[in-house]
Amino acid sequence: MDEQRLDRVVDQLMASYDEDRRLGEVPGLPPQEAIVAVIEQMRRLLFPGYYAADTLPAASRRYRVGTWICQLYTDLARILARAIAHAEPAAGPDAVRKRARDITGRFIDGLPGVRACLRQDAEAALEGDPAARNIEEVVLTYPGFEAITVHRIAHWLHDERVPYVPRAMSEWAHARTGIDIHPGARIGRRFFIDHGTGVVIGETTDIGDDVKIYQGVTLGALSVSRSLAGAKRHPTIEDRVVIYAGATVLGGQTVIGRGAVIGGNVWLTTSVAPATTVIESPPTLDFREPATPAD
Amino acid sequence: MDEQRLDRVVDQLMASYDEDRRLGEVPGLPPQEAIVAVIEQMRRLLFPGYYAADTLPAASRRYRVGTWICQLYTDLARILARAIAHAEPAAGPDAVRKRARDITGRFIDGLPGVRACLRQDAEAALEGDPAARNIEEVVLTYPGFEAITVHRIAHWLHDERVPYVPRAMSEWAHARTGIDIHPGARIGRRFFIDHGTGVVIGETTDIGDDVKIYQGVTLGALSVSRSLAGAKRHPTIEDRVVIYAGATVLGGQTVIGRGAVIGGNVWLTTSVAPATTVIESPPTLDFREPATPAD
Amino acid sequence: MDEQRLDRVVDQLMASYDEDRRLGEVPGLPPQEAIVAVIEQMRRLLFPGYYAADTLPAASRRYRVGTWICQLYTDLARILARAIAHAEPAAGPDAVRKRARDITGRFIDGLPGVRACLRQDAEAALEGDPAARNIEEVVLTYPGFEAITVHRIAHWLHDERVPYVPRAMSEWAHARTGIDIHPGARIGRRFFIDHGTGVVIGETTDIGDDVKIYQGVTLGALSVSRSLAGAKRHPTIEDRVVIYAGATVLGGQTVIGRGAVIGGNVWLTTSVAPATTVIESPPTLDFREPATPAD
Repeated sequence: MDEQRLDRVVDQLMASYDEDRRLGEVPGLPPQEAIVAVIEQMRRLLFPGYYAADTLPAASRRYRVGTWICQLYTDLARILARAIAHAEPAAGPDAVRKRARDITGRFIDGLPGVRACLRQDAEAALEGDPAARNIEEVVLTYPGFEAITVHRIAHWLHDERVPYVPRAMSEWAHARTGIDIHPGARIGRRFFIDHGTGVVIGETTDIGDDVKIYQGVTLGALSVSRSLAGAKRHPTIEDRVVIYAGATVLGGQTVIGRGAVIGGNVWLTTSVAPATTVIESPPTLDFREPATPAD
Repeated sequence: MDEQRLDRVVDQLMASYDEDRRLGEVPGLPPQEAIVAVIEQMRRLLFPGYYAADTLPAASRRYRVGTWICQLYTDLARILARAIAHAEPAAGPDAVRKRARDITGRFIDGLPGVRACLRQDAEAALEGDPAARNIEEVVLTYPGFEAITVHRIAHWLHDERVPYVPRAMSEWAHARTGIDIHPGARIGRRFFIDHGTGVVIGETTDIGDDVKIYQGVTLGALSVSRSLAGAKRHPTIEDRVVIYAGATVLGGQTVIGRGAVIGGNVWLTTSVAPATTVIESPPTLDFREPATPAD
Repeated sequence: MDEQRLDRVVDQLMASYDEDRRLGEVPGLPPQEAIVAVIEQMRRLLFPGYYAADTLPAASRRYRVGTWICQLYTDLARILARAIAHAEPAAGPDAVRKRARDITGRFIDGLPGVRACLRQDAEAALEGDPAARNIEEVVLTYPGFEAITVHRIAHWLHDERVPYVPRAMSEWAHARTGIDIHPGARIGRRFFIDHGTGVVIGETTDIGDDVKIYQGVTLGALSVSRSLAGAKRHPTIEDRVVIYAGATVLGGQTVIGRGAVIGGNVWLTTSVAPATTVIESPPTLDFREPATPAD
């Protein structure tokens, strides 16, 4: 590459970096690899038989688990500190570090509770899918279980007003599973998403207990005006609702009542009373028979 | 992190591991990386020009291919043994090893047949997609071809009643392609899935030869009651059927006859005679013209 | 594995490699890892604060950026040369190398323009999604932004008639985001895809400026006859159009006029006048109330 040409491009790029520093040399946000690494550490603590490289010998397991927690404490606190410092550039480094450590400590206190919750999610998947062989298959291979695992972690951090990290976690899960759950969504106990590709669950969605959702379901907003940031834009799904593949439920005032069943492909922008089954009246299908038999 | 707090969380987590050993320290299932590694070894043997790190010199290629097969034999047998031992804890280690080796031997015997079958799948993709430039592009970049490659391997192992491994393989392909094919599905020759994101093909689906399927198609079950585990819950698709994007075909008694064409978004829970074209009668669209021209 | 059995399989596989050399030992196409590596290099140059391992010290940043460009020049030219040599086996190595270098030089000249265009795309995402917190979140976590970044690079190379590499790039993005944009599609300024899983944009699609698209939208072809390769098979979307989730627009003659809004799930095979809103007349929903209250 000739030097003159190189100089010109370097100059143009550097001018552009300076023009908009947010898109130039700035961020200093925690790198994606570090965020993924803490998710892996969390999953190892939650399900050691699945994500640890080897089994835990009885004699030393107490030390191993303790070591894992200490490592998670250090790594998560560092990530949170970077994200907080980026979001609040005026905050002093000591205040940032203290806040990051406080949140991390509370997160670790909450780990046994997250594990209890995920055990129930895994049981719900096993009950809800006739193709499931056993709970190990659910934990290790079901994309819906991977998505809810990451969501329960990301939502916890979102509730603590951690900037950036929860969204980075949920988009990592989205890339791996095709399931897009905003970290803000509130999701009850024993939640099961089957297959899952194409599911979208918006920021202000509120989901009760024992809800089951299939691939391609959208729980979305009716309007995407930026003035609605912060408002309740996504639906409320009460306990024991089932929503079949491809259905769309929109709007912050839309409530799907307890025990309702929403059929495949149904499009809803209004509320549904409890225990109601909603199916689309079958559209007229047009069957064209062949003039001559197919070869 | 202070010691008292750490002790408390360690105790809580260990109590929880002990409470449900399936979700604690158990499994011993083959790790995902090992399963992915054997898929890569299989693809290298199936298409050496694509997946081998370098080209095969004519003089030594016989040795190279032989070495690859021996390595696959060792690694696959080890994985199968771990999966079988996990599923049948009462079986003795010798019996487990023998069964794993027998299956692996038959799998390797079958490799040339799998390759012949995949060559036809690649040709079908090239014929079926006007945007395809050549067969190399299909093999290396088409997600539908990646999904069917993994499926043909996973289905072979599923037919030999190998536990866990087939499902782990198919969910790996699902994560990479957005195409979710249960290893139990039976799929004929020259199968082509275009684009593919959101496709779901259930466990007891039966698909004939020369079938073509587009993104977002579901071949699913009408009911998901766990009492139906093992029953035929998913449809039968006969030879030469085309199913366009977003269509849904449900039910174990539903048969789509030879040569039928199912239009985009069609929702079917009943059988279709051979050579029939089914399209949804266009729903009334509501066109609202602007009061004033858009700016 | 016994020797006789091994010999037989090796012979069968080698006979099969020889039978169809395209699927045997040939290709010599650039490996996927090398293509991914140049995408990463490009992103580091486009947004150094996001993808570079560390921040650029003011004193040396000029040297760093220059070094990155030189490395990209070498690596991209090598990849393009392999792809061109594979597509045109009759071309001499000098001609291939020269063409690869010419294209690479022009690509690098164009980098500042690609960056300017992507800045506008990121701003459009920030404006278009009430859940977006800031532009860093868009650049680092939005799958729609990742897809358009890779598309703008792949489309540039596609316009230069580079074989294979653009498609490999776009399928890499498809695997990561669930968004399938053919490198041939022409896409205007300030383009935003929200959520994105299941989006398919065909080879001859033409999209204007300020267009917004949601998950599951297909911009596709009415016919997939191979005889149409090269013809305009996919729709034209004019400026300021919004297409909501799950809508399908098909056909090379279909034009969605400036400022039109296409509602969720709408299925269109005909043109729409400017500024028109098209929604599906709500299908009759069938609400079945429970005989007895749900438990």
